[in-house]
This record gives sequence, C-alpha cells and structure tokens, in this order.
Amino acid sequence: MSLAEKFVGIVPPVVTPYLPNGEVDVSGLRRVVRHLVDNGVHGLFLLGSTSECALLNENERMLVLTTALEEINGRVPVVAGVMDTATDLCIGHGQRARDAGVDGLVLTAPYYTRTNQTETMDHFRYVHDTVGLPIIAYDIPVCVNTKLSRETVNRLAQDEVIIALKDSSGDEGNFRMLTHDFANQPLFRLFTGSELVADSSILMGADGCVPGLANVDPSGYVRLYEAAVRGDLLAARAEQERLIDLFQMVFWSSAELSPGAGGVGAFKVAMKLMGLVKNSHMKRPNRPVPASVEARIELHLKRFGLLEA
Amino acid sequence: MSLAEKFVGIVPPVVTPYLPNGEVDVSGLRRVVRHLVDNGVHGLFLLGSTSECALLNENERMLVLTTALEEINGRVPVVAGVMDTATDLCIGHGQRARDAGVDGLVLTAPYYTRTNQTETMDHFRYVHDTVGLPIIAYDIPVCVNTKLSRETVNRLAQDEVIIALKDSSGDEGNFRMLTHDFANQPLFRLFTGSELVADSSILMGADGCVPGLANVDPSGYVRLYEAAVRGDLLAARAEQERLIDLFQMVFWSSAELSPGAGGVGAFKVAMKLMGLVKNSHMKRPNRPVPASVEARIELHLKRFGLLEA
Amino acid sequence: MSLAEKFVGIVPPVVTPYLPNGEVDVSGLRRVVRHLVDNGVHGLFLLGSTSECALLNENERMLVLTTALEEINGRVPVVAGVMDTATDLCIGHGQRARDAGVDGLVLTAPYYTRTNQTETMDHFRYVHDTVGLPIIAYDIPVCVNTKLSRETVNRLAQDEVIIALKDSSGDEGNFRMLTHDFANQPLFRLFTGSELVADSSILMGADGCVPGLANVDPSGYVRLYEAAVRGDLLAARAEQERLIDLFQMVFWSSAELSPGAGGVGAFKVAMKLMGLVKNSHMKRPNRPVPASVEARIELHLKRFGLLEA
Amino acid sequence: MSLAEKFVGIVPPVVTPYLPNGEVDVSGLRRVVRHLVDNGVHGLFLLGSTSECALLNENERMLVLTTALEEINGRVPVVAGVMDTATDLCIGHGQRARDAGVDGLVLTAPYYTRTNQTETMDHFRYVHDTVGLPIIAYDIPVCVNTKLSRETVNRLAQDEVIIALKDSSGDEGNFRMLTHDFANQPLFRLFTGSELVADSSILMGADGCVPGLANVDPSGYVRLYEAAVRGDLLAARAEQERLIDLFQMVFWSSAELSPGAGGVGAFKVAMKLMGLVKNSHMKRPNRPVPASVEARIELHLKRFGLLEA
Repeated sequence: MSLAEKFVGIVPPVVTPYLPNGEVDVSGLRRVVRHLVDNGVHGLFLLGSTSECALLNENERMLVLTTALEEINGRVPVVAGVMDTATDLCIGHGQRARDAGVDGLVLTAPYYTRTNQTETMDHFRYVHDTVGLPIIAYDIPVCVNTKLSRETVNRLAQDEVIIALKDSSGDEGNFRMLTHDFANQPLFRLFTGSELVADSSILMGADGCVPGLANVDPSGYVRLYEAAVRGDLLAARAEQERLIDLFQMVFWSSAELSPGAGGVGAFKVAMKLMGLVKNSHMKRPNRPVPASVEARIELHLKRFGLLEA
Repeated sequence: MSLAEKFVGIVPPVVTPYLPNGEVDVSGLRRVVRHLVDNGVHGLFLLGSTSECALLNENERMLVLTTALEEINGRVPVVAGVMDTATDLCIGHGQRARDAGVDGLVLTAPYYTRTNQTETMDHFRYVHDTVGLPIIAYDIPVCVNTKLSRETVNRLAQDEVIIALKDSSGDEGNFRMLTHDFANQPLFRLFTGSELVADSSILMGADGCVPGLANVDPSGYVRLYEAAVRGDLLAARAEQERLIDLFQMVFWSSAELSPGAGGVGAFKVAMKLMGLVKNSHMKRPNRPVPASVEARIELHLKRFGLLEA
Repeated sequence: MSLAEKFVGIVPPVVTPYLPNGEVDVSGLRRVVRHLVDNGVHGLFLLGSTSECALLNENERMLVLTTALEEINGRVPVVAGVMDTATDLCIGHGQRARDAGVDGLVLTAPYYTRTNQTETMDHFRYVHDTVGLPIIAYDIPVCVNTKLSRETVNRLAQDEVIIALKDSSGDEGNFRMLTHDFANQPLFRLFTGSELVADSSILMGADGCVPGLANVDPSGYVRLYEAAVRGDLLAARAEQERLIDLFQMVFWSSAELSPGAGGVGAFKVAMKLMGLVKNSHMKRPNRPVPASVEARIELHLKRFGLLEA
Repeated sequence: MSLAEKFVGIVPPVVTPYLPNGEVDVSGLRRVVRHLVDNGVHGLFLLGSTSECALLNENERMLVLTTALEEINGRVPVVAGVMDTATDLCIGHGQRARDAGVDGLVLTAPYYTRTNQTETMDHFRYVHDTVGLPIIAYDIPVCVNTKLSRETVNRLAQDEVIIALKDSSGDEGNFRMLTHDFANQPLFRLFTGSELVADSSILMGADGCVPGLANVDPSGYVRLYEAAVRGDLLAARAEQERLIDLFQMVFWSSAELSPGAGGVGAFKVAMKLMGLVKNSHMKRPNRPVPASVEARIELHLKRFGLLEA
C-alpha cells in the first residue's frame, strides 16, 4: 500500500520534549507518540514547525526520528520534515530520514534565500529525484516567505514529484480551489495546517488536517475527522468549536511570547500539566511561558476535562 | 421586522454600469437590479467595492441609490456603502443614503489615513450615533489597510453599534472564530465576502455571502445558499465548485489589468455579453478588459450555458 | 518663471488648524502660513497628508486654499494636494485648486481601488491633460498601497506630465537612483518627504524637502537647506541631527495614537504650545494627544528654545 | 588593537565560487580574496548572504573560512556570518569560526522561527557570552523577517554584546537616527549594506559599507570611501553614481531570476568574464543567469573599462 493510499486523517506535528539540560527527552517523546497513536491519530509528522525542527541540530533530528519510529513500530505512517535553506541540505536530511525508515518527506520552499516559483519547483524535483521517497509539499509562507502557487502545486502533482500538500498559508480561497482541482485525483492528498478550520476543510474535500493542538487533544481531532468523513456536519462543527475554545490558550501564550513560540509554548505547558512531558521549555532563544499563563492554562484544561479538577 | 432579522442569504455587491460618456447607465442599472432580484437574491449591497464606489462622485452615488431603490421597491433589503477617508465624510454619505431610503449602511475603517483599533471603533460609533441606521462592518484590509480585529467586531456588536460583518479579509481562521463567537447571537449577521468559500462559510455558521460573481450568476449562488441552509452538503459543494470554475475568468482578466480592476472588469464583460449592460468599461483610470480576454470569456459563458452556444 | 524653475528648497506640508467646533480655523491658518513664510520657507504644500487632506470635505479644502493663498499673496509658490480615489475626482479637485490660484498640483496614485503602473500613469496623464497645471507626483505607498516605480517616474517626466516628485516611500536606494537619473535635467525637481534624511538627500542631488516638522521649526529646515546647497556638510548634518532630536516627540505621540495621527498630533500640540494655533485636535476619528505626552512635548520645546523656559 | 578600532571602511561580502561539480572552488576563492585585498578593501565579510552562506553545508562553510583566512594572512580584519535558525546552531558556527581564526562574527535574528525583540536580544547575548568574539549585528528583515529595532541595537551596544551593525533593512530614516545615536561612541561601528547609498551613509556618520558589488569593482568603493572620509562630497557622489550605473546589471539578472539570486548571479557572471572565477553558477536551486543577460553584462563591463573592449 503506497503512502498516498494510506495518508489521510489527523496527522499531528509531534512536539519535541527536552530534558532540563536541553537534550531531546527520549522517554518523553516515546510517551507523546504513544499518547497520539493510542488515541487514534492516522499518521505522524515528525520534525515540523511545531516540533521545533528549525531549532534542532542534525543529531537531534536523527534521535527524534529513530526514537519515534521505534515507538510507532509501523502502526501509522510517519513523515518527516526535511526543510532547510538549500536543496542539497534538504537532500541530506532526506537521505538520513529515508535511511531511518520514514514513509515520506515534508518539504517547504527554501528560506533565507528567496526563490521564485521556477526555482522552487526545481528544488522539489531535485529532492524527489535524489531521495526517492514520496514528498508532501508544505506551504507556510509566514516562515519561508514564498507561497507555493496553485500552478506550482498542480504542476508538481501532475509530474508526480509530490503526493500531497500541507497548506498552512492561511489562503483558504486558494486551498478551496485546490480541493476542487484534485477532486478527481483521490491519491493526491490535501491537508490543511489550520487547526481552526479542519471541519470545513475536510467537508469540502481535504483529506485531513495537521493540527498542532492534537498534541494536547488527539481524540478531539479524531472525532472531528470521523464526523466529517461520514458527513455529520453538526457533529464535526460542534467538535471543531470545542477545539477552537481549547485553542484560546495559544492566544494567551502568544501575547507574552512571539508568534513563533506562542503555540508550541502553550501545547508544551498543557502536555506537562497532563503528565505527558516533564518540561515545557523550548529551545533557545525562546523563553518559557510565564507562570501566570501556565496557571490560566491549568484552569482551562480542567474546564475541558483534560485535567482532573 | 428589523434589518438584522431579514438580512441573510445572498447579497450581491451590485455592479454599476456606465453609458459611453461615463455617466451612470440608469436603465442598465435597473436591468442589473431586476436580474438579481428576479433570480432570487436576498438583498442588495449598493456602492460596494465591486460597484466602484470609490470611483463615483457624490451625485453618481445618489443616482445609483435612488435608481436602484426605486427599481427594487422594497422587494429585498438594501444596504449602501458609505466608506470614506474620514468620519464626517462617512456621516454625510450615510445621511444622504438614509434619506434616500436604504435599510442599512456598510462601513469600513477609514483609509489613506491610518487608524488603530480604538480610533476605528470610534469611527463606527460616531457614524452609528449620528446617522441612526443599522451598520454592517466591512473588513477589507487589502483596500483600507486596517484589519478589524476579532475584539473590535465583538465589542462593536456587544455595544449594538453594528448588526453584521462582511468579512473580505481572507482570514478564514479568524472568521471561523467569529461564527463561533456569535453562534448564540442569531441576530448578529456574518457574511463572507469570499465567493470561493461560500459553501463552507455558510455551513459553519455564516448567515450569507456577498459574492461579486453573483452579478453574473445570481441563481447559482441562491441555489448554493439554499442547499447549505438545508444542510445538503454535497449539493452546496457541487454548486460552489461550478461557481469556482465560472470564476476563473477573473484570473484571466486580472492577469491583464490590476487586481482592483480584474474582477469588476470580468463581471462587466460577462454582463455585457449576456445583454444585461451595454458597456463593460469601468471608471478611469481603469482600462477595459482586452478583446482577447473578452473572447475567452464569451466561450466560457457558453460552456456554462450562460450564453447561447 | 515656470513653477519648475522656482520650486526648490523647504516646502512644508501646512498643518490645518481647527476651531473647537471642528471647522477650519481661518485666522489660525493665516498665522501658520505667516509663521512659515516669515521664517523663510521656499514654498508651501497645502492639502497634504500632514494637512489632513483626506479628512476634509470639499468646502473645507477650498477654504484652506483660498485663505492660505490670500495670506501668502504670491510670496512663495504654492502647490495643493488633489489626491483621491479616482481620476475624475482628482480632476475636480484640480480644477477648483487651479481656479483658486495655486501654482501646481500634488497627486498620488489612486487609493482604495488598486491600480497597476500602467493605470497609474494614465491617471497622471488624464489629470495633467485636463487641468493644465504643473503636477508633482507624490509617492506614498504606506497610504495609497501603490509604489510609483522608477520607470513610471522617468516616463511621466520624459512625457512632461510631471515636473517633480515628492518621495515619501522610504525607499532611499530607489530615490538615490532617481537623483542620478535626473542629474542632467535640472528642471525636474526631486523632493524627499522624509524629514530625517533631508541633509543627505539634498547633498546627493535632491532639490528640497517636504518636512512636516517644519511646521514647528521652519528656520531649522531652512538653515539645513542653505547649508546643504552651499556644500557645508557639517553644518547641514548638525542641523539635521538637531531636528532628529526635536522629531522624537512624534514617537511619543505615535506610541499612544495611530501612526497616521502621531505625527500631525505632535506637531499640532507643539504649535499650540508655541501660540501658533489655539487647538491641537485633529479631525475625527483621530483622538487628541494625551495630556501626559503634551506635558512631555512642552519640556522638549523648552529644551530646544522653541518655548521660553 | 581591538576589532572595533580597526573595523571601518569597505568590507565586501565575499562571493563563494564553485567548481563545475558544485564544490567550493578553493583556488577561485583565493583569487577573489586577493583581488579584493590587493585593491584596498578594509576588511572581508565571509559567509554573508552574497556568499550564499545559507546554501553551504558545515564542511563548505569551514573550507571557505580556512581558505580565505590563509590567503588573507592577517592583512585585513575578517568577520564571518554565523546566522542560523536557532541559538545553539549559531553558537556552533561561531565556535568553529573562532577556532578557524576570524576576528568577529556576524549574526542576524533567527529565521524560519519568528522571534520578538526580547528573544532576539537573548539570542545575541547567548552567542556573545558563549563564543567570546566581537559580534556585528546584521539587520536584514527581507531574509529573516525580524527587523532589529533602534532600541534593540542601542541596548545590545550599551551592554557590549555587539560592536557594530550592518544595516541591510532599507530603512534609511532609522539608520540615520542610529548614526546620530552613536555619534559620540566612535567604537560602535555602523555599516550600511546598501551599496546604492554608501556615499551619503558615510558622509552622515556611517563607518563603512558592505557592498556586494565591490566583488566586481573593489577599487571603486575604496575610492568612494576615501573621498567620503576626507569630506570630498562631489568625488564621493560621482563615484557612487558610477557604481549605481554599474549596478544596473543586477536588475537585468533579477528580472530573469529571483530577487535572492539576481544580485549574486550578476556578480558571478561579471567575475567570470573578468577572469576571477571559472564558473558563475550558484548553489541549487538557483538557476544560472541566462546567456542573453551574460552577453549584456559583458558589453556593460567593457563600457566601464572592467573588461578590455
């Protein structure tokens, strides 16, 4: 069964926990992965933005991959982020991830350097041709500055360079055109990276969602997904709105930290309070979530039944 | 029955046709209005961006209002754009529109001058308090540079300054939070201005859509709306995707003109081909849609059955 | 003597004072104009951004023009802003300004509606051809969203549509190329709108500056200009740095108000403290500068000798 | 003599040449370095944006440093870019660069991840405290998305975390305030990264320039600098304008490639034509400059006497 055939549903970007000394917390990561898979998620995205991929060194990236893959043991498909500033750096990440055993690679346009659509398409082709694993295009212009145009996505799909798109661009009108473009190509997979519009995206043809918040409440997103695929609009919508309410903790955290750290920071604090990880800090230079926000998140989780009151 | 009670559904921003000498084409406008109302739209938005409101002088604005209101004759609610660069200018537009008989006003943040959220809220309050008509907030940062924040919309709604929001910001995650915020306040009305995501927006709680493309195919949007409100997801989605296909003519036009003129230009050409208006030109400095694009639009309309083949 | 021949030096955008009831303060405006001309400025720009042009209605625009022109009585060249959202609206402003007796018009790209460079060039041509006065192109993308490209400026100059550019784009690299482009065309005039880099701009070939801060300290900018044109780098630089220090009050004001209101607000407070105008408020929806900032500005002016200590 | 004492003047970001197989061209790099130092530049910036730092792997970064340092042999100060997405990655680059023998480090805000000013200041502090070399802050928001605020630069300077700023932000008004802020702190060094305004920047207090174009014409920038420091405004300006004319080849290249590749691509083609490097290609995914542009650049160089006609 090809990756494209089985790559659907809720695929959380897995948070990377650290020991107090800053090293990857291997047993914490195992616990996070079990938490996600045991609660029914359909795949895992390692080394994504929420995983602090850009903050890890090469050894840490590999430790995350080998640890998680061993723990998952084939229960769900696993894809790994290999984004970097240059084609050959991404190929290196991709070869190591392939050798570690992931099922597919997630790739953005290069960052720092600014590329146009032609150079960006070349970038995807080079990585695909050299590494030989299925590739999921990841559109996140807020981090990499380049938007993958509708034409680029269609062309790369048609040329079988990519098997899927994860759209974190926030351009829902464009994403809606893409679900329509690919309506008759069921093996090209469309994921929204926006955890606030998972219900409508799936109902309108998306194959799944990559929700950072699923690190905290995987069951909720699985329920949302299942309701949406069986066409139960009201149930999907109710679950989405519950998750929107849960998500508000990200705004509290972001008001104190930067936009980049606010989301991961809130998720890590919640996961620490829930006993999934021992520490909630992020890699430098991110600062920890302030205690006042942590206290507010604790009450919030109790209200949602995610912590005992 | 208050405006809020009846203000739902498909409310097209009415295109303003011109005579060859540049004056408002009064009989053409009557024809456009009849075309829309006869095809079942639920309300009309006069003097919006698609109406070239920013390109009309005061007399032309009034001529559009009085002509359309007379032709509509109370069959559907009518709201009028009164956006301008300063509070007192908007109040003037609002008073004249009120005296002409519109049911409500549509208002953006001021433009050219750059205001913050506090000043923007004041702006809405002053217009509301002075003119005394229901106000629909119009969020279109691409034109006015200021995004109406979620907090601003909630506060103005709570203070009964605005009765509705038309969201053309493209920030669908934020809009999804708003449909959730107002789920228990059925008399605050949420409209998407994005004609490509009308189906999902309405299914997720929006009260309607303000689609420029409805000038060309009002029946399609009415069918989409009716399918969505009765929960027929598949029918709504199929209609939306047909309208997405029809919308592609806007990209052809925009590739030749500016983003501001591309949409209106394509709609006007289609409406001319369909016999609704005699001329497709826009106000200066917009240039006409090139003949090559017009020919392509003609074929397109035939394929959609909007023109006889 | 054509406008281009005499249009050089310090040309402040004249602040528009109001009476407590919001009407234009005619005697205050006369006082401001005298203050500027008596202190040696080389021309006046009425109805610019700093004049709150976008906040005035048609009658107020005319009252500003006729009052100022009468007071100036030909002592210096006077240009008037005629920017608006559409070509025909600008032509109307331009004809009235011409009939009032201004020497030239200042024109931006249209705003709200978004035009490309071709449509923008047409806009300038139409206004020029119809009104028949010399036109100064005004590049202020932060207000109008369209940047006048180097090619657009060169083409309009070559076709004798514009006689000057006021560059408030903040793109100093592009402006530096323009001073070079026009080095051999002394009758095309280049003004920087950035009051913080007047010294270097003039030393590198600009013909003058349009400094909002000159409303408060016209003599300073006149000294700066005279030092720069006689090549006295050190004197120009010292004067510029003194004016940079004086300008800091704008940051205090902007921290409380919006960017649009911060500058004008600070200037008006200073002018009130200096006895030039009776009120410092701006047109709605702008809020007044808070008293705490006003107190800080008062101390600031004393330190600069602009108020008696 | 500390780095701050001697770090002034023209400090080109050194282009990195490659062999046809993509490896760093060691003898080409030696030739480039000699070309720059023999023509009088005052320092070298290795591993900057123009050096394609973001496209090199760790071994290549080290090969560039050791090769260039050996060739320079202490004749001028050498600083090395150590920018990356995370603090600890930058510290690793910094330690290796320190051990290789560079005189200072050049550091941006982290990229991909988005940090606020507080986190960004922490980032600079951590690298400074751990590596122990003088640090030059590099402000290039177009690549890293974060602008170093005036307050951040002042605070880091005051705390002796940074000894200099290279400003490639394009915000010349802010840079002008910085030259004024540091007028009495001669050992804090301000460099403009904008090769089009080197003359005015230096005349207004900057200590030097980091011009990519100096790879092609180092003597020109050295002459410009020397004229500016002796206060010869006219000579500095004439040289700057000659270099602006030379720079036009970057626009020809950028029209075909992306903004990121256009500048480096044009410089490399010119350097190949001048016999400094054997190949002009860049790292993937950048495409080569088209032959038509190369032909145009050849004529251009002849006109400037940089190639024999």
